[in-house]
Amino acid sequence: MTKLSDVNSKLLKARYAVRGKIVIRAQELEEQGRKIIYCNIGNPQALRQKPITFVRQVLSLLEYPALLEQPGAEKFFPADTVRRAKMILEKNPAGTGAYTQSAGIPFIRKAIAEFIEKRDGIPADPNRIMLTDGASKGVHTVFTLLTNKANDGYMIPIPQYPLYSAAIELYGARQINYFLDEKNQWRLDEEELTRSIEGARASGVNPVAIAVINPGNPTGAVLSRKNIGMVIRFAKKHGLAIMADEVYQENVYGEGLEFHSFAKVMHELGEKEVTLFSFHSVSKGFLGECGHRGGYLEIRNMPDDVYAEVIKLLSIGLCSNVDGQIVTYLMAAPPQPGDESYELYSKERAAILGDLKEKAEILGKGLNEIEGMKTDIPEGAMYAFVRFDLPHPKGIDPEAMSPDERHKYEAARDSKYCLRLLEGTGICVVPGSGFGQHPGTLHFRTTFLPPKEDILALVEKMKKFHASYVAKLRES
Amino acid sequence: MTKLSDVNSKLLKARYAVRGKIVIRAQELEEQGRKIIYCNIGNPQALRQKPITFVRQVLSLLEYPALLEQPGAEKFFPADTVRRAKMILEKNPAGTGAYTQSAGIPFIRKAIAEFIEKRDGIPADPNRIMLTDGASKGVHTVFTLLTNKANDGYMIPIPQYPLYSAAIELYGARQINYFLDEKNQWRLDEEELTRSIEGARASGVNPVAIAVINPGNPTGAVLSRKNIGMVIRFAKKHGLAIMADEVYQENVYGEGLEFHSFAKVMHELGEKEVTLFSFHSVSKGFLGECGHRGGYLEIRNMPDDVYAEVIKLLSIGLCSNVDGQIVTYLMAAPPQPGDESYELYSKERAAILGDLKEKAEILGKGLNEIEGMKTDIPEGAMYAFVRFDLPHPKGIDPEAMSPDERHKYEAARDSKYCLRLLEGTGICVVPGSGFGQHPGTLHFRTTFLPPKEDILALVEKMKKFHASYVAKLRES
Repeated sequence: MTKLSDVNSKLLKARYAVRGKIVIRAQELEEQGRKIIYCNIGNPQALRQKPITFVRQVLSLLEYPALLEQPGAEKFFPADTVRRAKMILEKNPAGTGAYTQSAGIPFIRKAIAEFIEKRDGIPADPNRIMLTDGASKGVHTVFTLLTNKANDGYMIPIPQYPLYSAAIELYGARQINYFLDEKNQWRLDEEELTRSIEGARASGVNPVAIAVINPGNPTGAVLSRKNIGMVIRFAKKHGLAIMADEVYQENVYGEGLEFHSFAKVMHELGEKEVTLFSFHSVSKGFLGECGHRGGYLEIRNMPDDVYAEVIKLLSIGLCSNVDGQIVTYLMAAPPQPGDESYELYSKERAAILGDLKEKAEILGKGLNEIEGMKTDIPEGAMYAFVRFDLPHPKGIDPEAMSPDERHKYEAARDSKYCLRLLEGTGICVVPGSGFGQHPGTLHFRTTFLPPKEDILALVEKMKKFHASYVAKLRES
Repeated sequence: MTKLSDVNSKLLKARYAVRGKIVIRAQELEEQGRKIIYCNIGNPQALRQKPITFVRQVLSLLEYPALLEQPGAEKFFPADTVRRAKMILEKNPAGTGAYTQSAGIPFIRKAIAEFIEKRDGIPADPNRIMLTDGASKGVHTVFTLLTNKANDGYMIPIPQYPLYSAAIELYGARQINYFLDEKNQWRLDEEELTRSIEGARASGVNPVAIAVINPGNPTGAVLSRKNIGMVIRFAKKHGLAIMADEVYQENVYGEGLEFHSFAKVMHELGEKEVTLFSFHSVSKGFLGECGHRGGYLEIRNMPDDVYAEVIKLLSIGLCSNVDGQIVTYLMAAPPQPGDESYELYSKERAAILGDLKEKAEILGKGLNEIEGMKTDIPEGAMYAFVRFDLPHPKGIDPEAMSPDERHKYEAARDSKYCLRLLEGTGICVVPGSGFGQHPGTLHFRTTFLPPKEDILALVEKMKKFHASYVAKLRES
């Protein structure tokens, strides 16, 4: 029988906190009948966000194209959804039922190129765009492609989305941490990047790529054009590829802020040397179609022979799911003014984004009013990364610990806090140690996806819980 | 810029013939306006097989649940599809739009356990069943789990489905070939297994698992209960896990033959030590829903701590796509007698399977009438693995070559043949060297999925092509 000692040691080392122990415990409690508020993961429709009607109508027609022929069925579907479904079936006659090209259906890749051209005012090549089962699968693709030797390293932000750290362990690469500047709204700092890469090189690591998440997960920060330009120059100087995780590009709430893609800034800088991988997804934004596992990976500055290897890798998994490809297409090519669905689509879109913006503020302000908690009002994405303070129990002095002991002590502290929070209130958040944080600091990540009334209740519950938890620690 | 020398050397070595150079050439020709008959891959709906209506009606309702509420819509959907969609939404209120548990939606895993119990008359555990994006992703999961050291090896059949050889290269493991017995309808032979594993051990390889494809791909053979029992005892004796690729379990056409699952035979033998991974898919059988990327992996004889690692690995990719999970559910829990859809469902099912059986015979018999070609009439799956003979050009004596030279010469011969066949006739088949074959023999794999009239035309075209190709070689 397969024993633990037979298992891939890289897998054993990997950790993935957003679906880790606390979430497994939450599922257990739920099965026992407890009401759980899942704030651990950006899964909008699980928290009652409604899907965009247009998207679902087109999918419904494509799943059962006989509806397109049956008199009377048209009254349930706006004329543009019928036109759209027919157009898709004309370009891809096998519909949702057949494998596609490994990189995805050609007309969809073309539509995505046009989406990028329109978004950024720059050219894009359909033959450098690949449809993926969510952005995660695109990220895995890049790690498989670029990890060649055991000392190959990836620079990742701290705090980060733990897909990156998990993939680094899984593919047997080295993790190179660069810290985001919490005091400066989690911006990237060139000195810190330099410190990070020099430290890595000094310890024998060969940096191959830098990952940037913008808007930030878990930080909620939106990077400036200048900050992005700095990263591109840094990557060029050090011969790194860039992994730009841009899945929250529609989720920008901060006044006066806008999303700048790495592709656009690279184009503006005339940069033609740095290889760029950028990831997008249908799971976030205002679609929130996590279950459909759709997304794309766009690559820039890659020669044909290397690109052929990417295609071969995709082909070994055959292709991404076609419904996910269709949703990605509809994200890239939404209804236009004059289309029958346009008004409802625009209304639903505005309502979801407006609601998220409002909830970001309610959550951020609410948590900031709790003594011992502090967070930026999220400028983007779907999360707040909340700093909290806890007193040390009597007789415990972290300053006297070794770095390793202290690391364990700190990680245990936030995990224990989140576990007690879950058990006491039903609120499921993820401890900061799952994302990484400066030693000596404590955080948790929470989404602001639950309905407004739940967020208000959540803040109240957290306030009570925190006060009583701190009081107990002081007494211990 | 990322150069070929930066790319993962394991990826560079991997080959995946069913989507390899010949298929890429076919796509080019198609873009130039040529009509291509894609016989390279089991993709039924791309070759005009119609989807099962029941499956698509339920999916259509789930994608746009508003149809369940709108008066008049019910006339387009049989009452049992409406009941089914409502039941699914009750058990999984977020529908198709939300991430699920990493292993998949619990009620679907339960339904699959019941499907196995009913199919085999044996118990099955929903907590050892995982929904996957097609069977391929299940296979990748097992390779990631079990590959620990660079000398870990996997026994795979020759000929094999090249997912296995590609994954072995990609995960940095060692390939251990065991030959199927072409003279004995591609059965497995214990002596050959023993020869194979002893040879591997002698060369320092540590065998960890044996893969068996039943019904066979590319061979079309269906294994007997006795043959399966032999493999299980062999695995036990040598401490191997078993990877049972059972995606063609519904595709058995041979008179008097039936599908025996490894799970059932293991249960009957009282075997509780050998770890079994079995793969199933919605892409084959009579559903042919390749585009939906649904399937499952069932594991037997695995301790909880190892299973937790499997779940962690799945969680790093979040979950499989929900439409694919739903299709897998509908495969496991089809309409029953008395359900409104039952009659149509049964009729469609019988028509597809009957048609496949007929086409297997037409193709097999037709090819056997071509001088210099020989194949078994496929007993199962969707392919014929066709042996063909070619004369050697004057002055070429393979017997005088080194094994390496000869290998290259033989591989080039069948690849060149298939390329010329494509260019001359538009028929796209895969050379035997992509699957593996005995040195000195030549094969190609073709599906028998095209419509009947196309298969008749295909046989005619192949006959003419083969005669002229042989004539040209003789003249050269």
